[in-house]
Amino acid sequence: MQAAWRSGDAGRRVRDKHGMTSPATIAAANALEQGKALTPRYDANGLIAAVTTHAETGEVLMLAWMNAEALAKTLSTGEAHYFSRSRNELWHKGATSGQVQVIEEMRIDCDQDAVWLKVWPQGDGGACHTGQRSCFYRVIEGGKLAMRP
Amino acid sequence: MQAAWRSGDAGRRVRDKHGMTSPATIAAANALEQGKALTPRYDANGLIAAVTTHAETGEVLMLAWMNAEALAKTLSTGEAHYFSRSRNELWHKGATSGQVQVIEEMRIDCDQDAVWLKVWPQGDGGACHTGQRSCFYRVIEGGKLAMRP
Repeated sequence: MQAAWRSGDAGRRVRDKHGMTSPATIAAANALEQGKALTPRYDANGLIAAVTTHAETGEVLMLAWMNAEALAKTLSTGEAHYFSRSRNELWHKGATSGQVQVIEEMRIDCDQDAVWLKVWPQGDGGACHTGQRSCFYRVIEGGKLAMRP
Repeated sequence: MQAAWRSGDAGRRVRDKHGMTSPATIAAANALEQGKALTPRYDANGLIAAVTTHAETGEVLMLAWMNAEALAKTLSTGEAHYFSRSRNELWHKGATSGQVQVIEEMRIDCDQDAVWLKVWPQGDGGACHTGQRSCFYRVIEGGKLAMRP
């Protein structure tokens, strides 16, 4: 891992993100990207992106948002909690629909502004309010959308 | 699909999103979620989230952002383009690192504020500037992060 930090690509990224390459900047990036501490970088609205895949099939089921409370609840309960931007409130996925998502594994990305949840969908096994299994039920082809399992 | 819209879950979502359930509101949601028109719903910064998976393994490689230009370039070139929030510019993934992402398939979600790219990573086959194959190289366990392939 250290080798990667000495590569041209890593150096470029440190400059990109922070505008400078001082030892302190590099140390901070190292801690963020290589450390053991969970330090999510929430955006101006206090949110990070969460991508959720099916633990068995790997299919991307949905993309949603978490605030610190949603992340903490997900970790403490083992069930996916998000922050609903439309309702502006904590959202225990499946609380009303039955489509509870039991966490198999949870990952965070290099700069800690996105998480990846591998889940076991409960209830009818779906994740989308439209009735589809995944929210990504349409492909983009020739500038148009087409339904595709 | 229409059946889903008449279900309690769909009706609830229409109210959640729009605060009302008039025929016009339902028609608008129907067009967005069931129509063939690509009408991305960019956020206040002009961005939508993009989750990128490996076309063969299904592994989530990264989560990034697209503006309208990045989306158009991705569709016209068949290679992933994103919008770099740190550099505030269009970002042709792999232009400098060689980690070009050739698009296998591109999907959009129910409310058209997120896209899913299935890609064939070129160059060294990786996607992360740290040298890891995926940006999600750490699992969250017991409140700490652990490296895990």
